[in-house]
Amino acid sequence: MKVLVIGGCGFIGSHVVDLLLREGCRVRVFDRRPEAFRPPLAGVDYVMGDYSDPNLVFQALHDVEAVLHLASATVPATANLNPVTDIEANLLATVRLLDVMRATGKRRLVFLSSGGTVYGVPQTDPVPEEHPLRPIGSYGIVKVAIESYIRMEQALYGMAPVVLRASNPYGPRQGHTGVQGIIGTHLWRAARGEPVEIWGDGQVTRDFIHVRDLAALCVEALRSGTCGCFNAGSGTGTSVAEIVAGIDRTVQASGGPPVRALRLPGRGYDVPRVVLDISRARAAFDWAPRIGLEEGLAETWRWVCTTLAHETAAEAPRPRAKLARPRRSARF
Amino acid sequence: MKVLVIGGCGFIGSHVVDLLLREGCRVRVFDRRPEAFRPPLAGVDYVMGDYSDPNLVFQALHDVEAVLHLASATVPATANLNPVTDIEANLLATVRLLDVMRATGKRRLVFLSSGGTVYGVPQTDPVPEEHPLRPIGSYGIVKVAIESYIRMEQALYGMAPVVLRASNPYGPRQGHTGVQGIIGTHLWRAARGEPVEIWGDGQVTRDFIHVRDLAALCVEALRSGTCGCFNAGSGTGTSVAEIVAGIDRTVQASGGPPVRALRLPGRGYDVPRVVLDISRARAAFDWAPRIGLEEGLAETWRWVCTTLAHETAAEAPRPRAKLARPRRSARF
Repeated sequence: MKVLVIGGCGFIGSHVVDLLLREGCRVRVFDRRPEAFRPPLAGVDYVMGDYSDPNLVFQALHDVEAVLHLASATVPATANLNPVTDIEANLLATVRLLDVMRATGKRRLVFLSSGGTVYGVPQTDPVPEEHPLRPIGSYGIVKVAIESYIRMEQALYGMAPVVLRASNPYGPRQGHTGVQGIIGTHLWRAARGEPVEIWGDGQVTRDFIHVRDLAALCVEALRSGTCGCFNAGSGTGTSVAEIVAGIDRTVQASGGPPVRALRLPGRGYDVPRVVLDISRARAAFDWAPRIGLEEGLAETWRWVCTTLAHETAAEAPRPRAKLARPRRSARF
Repeated sequence: MKVLVIGGCGFIGSHVVDLLLREGCRVRVFDRRPEAFRPPLAGVDYVMGDYSDPNLVFQALHDVEAVLHLASATVPATANLNPVTDIEANLLATVRLLDVMRATGKRRLVFLSSGGTVYGVPQTDPVPEEHPLRPIGSYGIVKVAIESYIRMEQALYGMAPVVLRASNPYGPRQGHTGVQGIIGTHLWRAARGEPVEIWGDGQVTRDFIHVRDLAALCVEALRSGTCGCFNAGSGTGTSVAEIVAGIDRTVQASGGPPVRALRLPGRGYDVPRVVLDISRARAAFDWAPRIGLEEGLAETWRWVCTTLAHETAAEAPRPRAKLARPRRSARF
């Protein structure tokens, strides 16, 4: 099977591509830029560009049997700053993609939606897929609209889609810009000897899933003949305070110093608790999350330390600038 | 109070403007083109243009206290043909409007959504506002997204909005292009002596509301201090077959011939039954629909006949073309 992975150079996409290659699929990746932490992979056909360009998408769809759409031009924390851009870069681009898929007879699509934002403030715990969709920010509003257009495409034109509503993925290759992914952000800060930030009492609770478990679900869903909408999380809630404690244990177990926490006032827009009910995905795809949080934190910590060491080496002061200190330094 | 009515030259807008003027409001109308069936009204400040232009909207908002947003660049029957245009002309334009309203400190908004499309295929009868939003076409998808952005604007920036989910309005000044409004379409066809079309068994059922009842709700909602989302219908279901029978009675009562019905195969995309639960609007605004269907049909029939007579007179054959028959002729 040949698969087009839109967003295949991103954090989640890179793990999906790994798995597809391992399972013998042929892979074409469509993304705006190369992977941040690895060189291009042998055997992958890369198309660099913007998927809102129908001509590029048309070419990229040539000879593929299925599409995994993992791209997002925005993140939840910043999408509200410019909803027009959010709508143009995500909703319009995806509606155009559906148009080209229909025109070229491509029926199989797996789309990555957002279990953390489409439900708004959950009224049940855990949250099943039938929970009302009441997003409170632009990121979730756009995801809901995309899901609806996909459902319309299925009803009117025979598309065979799977929508996966992902919770909070973490793991190796998550960026460290600080706008998305509390585990990645905290591990990078800890590795630099910086304090990690805790807003409010630390009881804000999320459903963290290891990125390889999520990638496995993407690939299982793609290979199945099943259509529909599925939550994609671990099904387990972990508070921010528990994450910080877990990171502290992980860092100290590797010989590092205690992690310092910087306590900040609570953020009014944080939904207190989102934990997904994943029984539908478990039953449909014979899939289950396999990587526990402690194991995942330890692996991600090793990856952060190794990556930071490489970055530090690359940024090491040149002989002529002996007084300059590298901006990013591992303190232990 | 000075009010900006976006879409104030449309079918619903024209009746809202009438009522606002009658109640002593000052009115500015923003629309793409003048009213189809009346000359401009004395005392109304008209701004002609596209409300997706933030500069024009900025100027139009000057010195108004509240905004009634009734404009739609698409109709349910055709929005699916080009979802990109639907998103650009309705969703993006409204998100830009919200942006300008926030920038200029305008908090009060009444937005006309769609009770016939946002719920998708109803699971209850009648349909209350809490019913899940599962639109099955682009028109409803875009209305849901707009509602969500309005709710976000309320939560984050203190907007004071009312969303009215209108059912199927009918009455004088409804256009006769045939793409929206079965009652208007059928009355115009009957007036031209053409058969009216019935798809399937005629049991498709909708909630028809007289346009002046809907306009009254718009104005009551605007004047109240209430915020929220409200169904805006008659609360009563009427089948297509009943509508045709009612039109036949109306036409014959005015001395016309029996209405001929052209039976066509059922349309797969017609939702069988949508009737709105309007108890929330009744309680919040001390409002109730007052114009019964028979009375409304009779009034609309008189308006259609009068308007058609004027059009026919304007199109009357010139002396030199004695053999030409006017294309639109009232047969009785």
